[in-house]
Amino acid sequence: MKNSAILLVDCPDRKGIVAAISDFLYRHNANILHNDQHQDADLGLFLSRVEWDGQGFALPASEFRPAFQPIAEKFGMRWRLETSAVRPRLAIMVSKYLHCLADLLYRHDSGELACEIPVIISNHEDARRLAEFYRIPFACVSGKDESRQRALLAEHRVDFVVLARYMQILSPEFVAQYPQRIINVHHSFLPAFSGAKPYHRAFERGVKLIGATSHYVTEVLDDGPIIEQDVVRISHRDQIEDLQEKGRDLEKAVLSRAVRWHIDHRILVYAKKTVVFD
Amino acid sequence: MKNSAILLVDCPDRKGIVAAISDFLYRHNANILHNDQHQDADLGLFLSRVEWDGQGFALPASEFRPAFQPIAEKFGMRWRLETSAVRPRLAIMVSKYLHCLADLLYRHDSGELACEIPVIISNHEDARRLAEFYRIPFACVSGKDESRQRALLAEHRVDFVVLARYMQILSPEFVAQYPQRIINVHHSFLPAFSGAKPYHRAFERGVKLIGATSHYVTEVLDDGPIIEQDVVRISHRDQIEDLQEKGRDLEKAVLSRAVRWHIDHRILVYAKKTVVFD
Amino acid sequence: MKNSAILLVDCPDRKGIVAAISDFLYRHNANILHNDQHQDADLGLFLSRVEWDGQGFALPASEFRPAFQPIAEKFGMRWRLETSAVRPRLAIMVSKYLHCLADLLYRHDSGELACEIPVIISNHEDARRLAEFYRIPFACVSGKDESRQRALLAEHRVDFVVLARYMQILSPEFVAQYPQRIINVHHSFLPAFSGAKPYHRAFERGVKLIGATSHYVTEVLDDGPIIEQDVVRISHRDQIEDLQEKGRDLEKAVLSRAVRWHIDHRILVYAKKTVVFD
Amino acid sequence: MKNSAILLVDCPDRKGIVAAISDFLYRHNANILHNDQHQDADLGLFLSRVEWDGQGFALPASEFRPAFQPIAEKFGMRWRLETSAVRPRLAIMVSKYLHCLADLLYRHDSGELACEIPVIISNHEDARRLAEFYRIPFACVSGKDESRQRALLAEHRVDFVVLARYMQILSPEFVAQYPQRIINVHHSFLPAFSGAKPYHRAFERGVKLIGATSHYVTEVLDDGPIIEQDVVRISHRDQIEDLQEKGRDLEKAVLSRAVRWHIDHRILVYAKKTVVFD
Repeated sequence: MKNSAILLVDCPDRKGIVAAISDFLYRHNANILHNDQHQDADLGLFLSRVEWDGQGFALPASEFRPAFQPIAEKFGMRWRLETSAVRPRLAIMVSKYLHCLADLLYRHDSGELACEIPVIISNHEDARRLAEFYRIPFACVSGKDESRQRALLAEHRVDFVVLARYMQILSPEFVAQYPQRIINVHHSFLPAFSGAKPYHRAFERGVKLIGATSHYVTEVLDDGPIIEQDVVRISHRDQIEDLQEKGRDLEKAVLSRAVRWHIDHRILVYAKKTVVFD
Repeated sequence: MKNSAILLVDCPDRKGIVAAISDFLYRHNANILHNDQHQDADLGLFLSRVEWDGQGFALPASEFRPAFQPIAEKFGMRWRLETSAVRPRLAIMVSKYLHCLADLLYRHDSGELACEIPVIISNHEDARRLAEFYRIPFACVSGKDESRQRALLAEHRVDFVVLARYMQILSPEFVAQYPQRIINVHHSFLPAFSGAKPYHRAFERGVKLIGATSHYVTEVLDDGPIIEQDVVRISHRDQIEDLQEKGRDLEKAVLSRAVRWHIDHRILVYAKKTVVFD
Repeated sequence: MKNSAILLVDCPDRKGIVAAISDFLYRHNANILHNDQHQDADLGLFLSRVEWDGQGFALPASEFRPAFQPIAEKFGMRWRLETSAVRPRLAIMVSKYLHCLADLLYRHDSGELACEIPVIISNHEDARRLAEFYRIPFACVSGKDESRQRALLAEHRVDFVVLARYMQILSPEFVAQYPQRIINVHHSFLPAFSGAKPYHRAFERGVKLIGATSHYVTEVLDDGPIIEQDVVRISHRDQIEDLQEKGRDLEKAVLSRAVRWHIDHRILVYAKKTVVFD
Repeated sequence: MKNSAILLVDCPDRKGIVAAISDFLYRHNANILHNDQHQDADLGLFLSRVEWDGQGFALPASEFRPAFQPIAEKFGMRWRLETSAVRPRLAIMVSKYLHCLADLLYRHDSGELACEIPVIISNHEDARRLAEFYRIPFACVSGKDESRQRALLAEHRVDFVVLARYMQILSPEFVAQYPQRIINVHHSFLPAFSGAKPYHRAFERGVKLIGATSHYVTEVLDDGPIIEQDVVRISHRDQIEDLQEKGRDLEKAVLSRAVRWHIDHRILVYAKKTVVFD
């Protein structure tokens, strides 16, 4: 099993940041596996993701913070350390459309998604049988009972939430509790057709491609930072049902990629956008 | 050189239309090359494109109308007959961005576009040298002088107009004179980012794909029936200049396909949408 | 539920075929839903697929053959009539990789695939639990025991077979019994990397895209008529495991499309190639 | 105009390489713009591309080598320094198909390709008019007269050569003189359909996608390290002429990307493959 550490950093861009980080890691005997960075020239920002082998790294996790803090302060960094050994805990919320849920559960089961799934929450019973097949606890909670939903998330120590075609709007308080930790899939190529019934509106407009978008949820509907998008070609032969069927495959693709990247700590959010380090 | 005839039909859907058309063509000894049709169940519409070999067809073009009229009347058809021997006459209007113009002229020169290009009209001098290289008459006319523009189109007996990144808005009167005969390219995946500066707005929104759209021009800006769309993937590394550069290739692709399909009489417009028969 | 009839025809191309078929259908009161055809000029072949509404069609299925036979004979047609009311019976053969099986079963369960799946056959036990979840009979049979396999297919009156990453080679006798009725998925962009370990060889060659291919099985390995192909972009960052993971999604996509098109009677094979009517 | 320096490095992977390079650059006051790296775990290789702002960098180009040499020796690096201020000199060789040439010349003229094009060499006269339009010297030389070709390359101090559908095979001596400096475009998705007439063979095989590949030329035909590939969907309706027409757009795309990446010093070759740093 992979045992690596990941440092995510963003700070004002200036000379010496790369040297400071790489020198720090070298002094503690890190074997760097991936090192990616991005500069935003307009905003004067530096963003970076460094991953190194936990094997042989001289600094225990508990001592990382005090050791790294002087560098972080010198450059004014926002930073966090993640380790692949700690599997993040994911709650999936779902309604009656089960294709994204089924896809995520199969991928999880086959080892593609390195996370725990302690609970599935739905406002309908439809998903129960699937949850039981994969031996994941299932809770049927009314979409209006957010306090029960949030209690479940707390109880299961959930790190992030995936809305797998959940079809309900979360309250601002719910969203605020999980900043950049709630991933939604919208069945259009945002910002086109945000809101309700995107396939119907795409059909009426006569577009030649339909899309799907995974994004972090913010207070404003369908407006959060986009993580991934994809499209598929349609023609005049495709009726709304065909759009929905083709769209389901898109939704699965963009949502599962977003979940994987989130788990792998590849995503940094800034300026309402995401950097996805590959 | 190809010598084929194309019949384009739309009418209320009912039984016997296909039989009536194919029987008519058979009786006049047509060798059918392509036969495509589309039914819109919701609107109860039948749309069809039939192409046959002009060689051996027993009915001269001048006699087609009276011979076909009884069938057309029986089924309430809107129809037109086109022949590949008559090359449609295209005027290209362009501003300072020349990539779409250069692409169309090269394709025309190499035989990909079976049309005449009697005139290129621009509000700047930049395109003149390119026009001269391809030996196409060039006219520099102020964007505000529509009467001069329209006089040029009339004088050159222009059948349809392509706005190859023309950047000016045509008056409703101009548009009304060429219904479904003006093709524009918009540098976004419509309906996203209609209007000005789509690449800038795509960059700010943080989309993961950018697009381009070719469409027929109607009175409402960027709202006409969509002919073709395509997208390309971008990442956080792409700055606005990169979006513009990648976008140029998209614009060329979707515009040149639309022009080819228009020339080949593959496009039928209905319900604000297009059917593109392949 | 849809109740339509589909006529598939191929014959030497000559004048009057379309007229003869559409007149025949009109005389028996058919409401044509789709009408697609293809001419191969080099081979002088005409191929066609016509679909009409079973509702209101005047000719019972049992009387179709004698009524249509004169036309078929006149034009030397190979033809068959299918009806959407008769759901074809599919056997899935699978080995230890279950992603294609899981994908097909989910699609079947959610109504995307209008077929019966009377049996799943595997040379391993791994797929049993999945089969039971979807309540499909499961048989574990050694890959070498073809007589038992073929007995099962006969017993379940199987119309066509899908090799969902089956990993075993069928005998020529087995293949000959199901001509154009066995669909395989190969994890490369054929004809590149036919045979064993395509992802490893793609990795070594340093290709920038990997592919997958669904095709009808013939006597020659990976050489049958191609039904569908797709590709996905990879980079130097992708290791063999990443190719396999990205490839799994491709395999599911191209296989499920092939199965759907086969069920919908959209595929005609000729000259070692397929026509897929859309 | 951009004035940046690019360091390309490959060496056996071990700890401390990133720290050594970034510390070296920091000490000489480099403002790093891009920093990308790749580890090949199987081969134990480290590859890197670092780009920094020439503005403010304390080390003149002439002093870089002696200053960096101790680090290079310590880690056993193969390395080179490039500067964006030095525009590489490109010779284009072309035959009768001019679409790739026209595309490259237009891109060069519009500023997309930061190189000089001192000469175009062809074994036919067809390209002369295009070359003159873009004011590039043109030489018509028999494909068999390699000594004249190579003399022209030497005379024009050519850094790299692009075979823009040149259709002739270069001698091993010619190839050896420009290792990883000759870029070819092959009109198939390699390794499928290497050699002659790939569109014809793709048509016969009945593939559902056609492709194009740009690669560095080596002694073995169509076997060199692949730089870029792309595909486009085709159907049974596409005849060989359609494949050729669609293919031309692919060829332009994959060739122009390869040329741009080569000019930007983004490509490292190892193990017969390329790393293309983005």
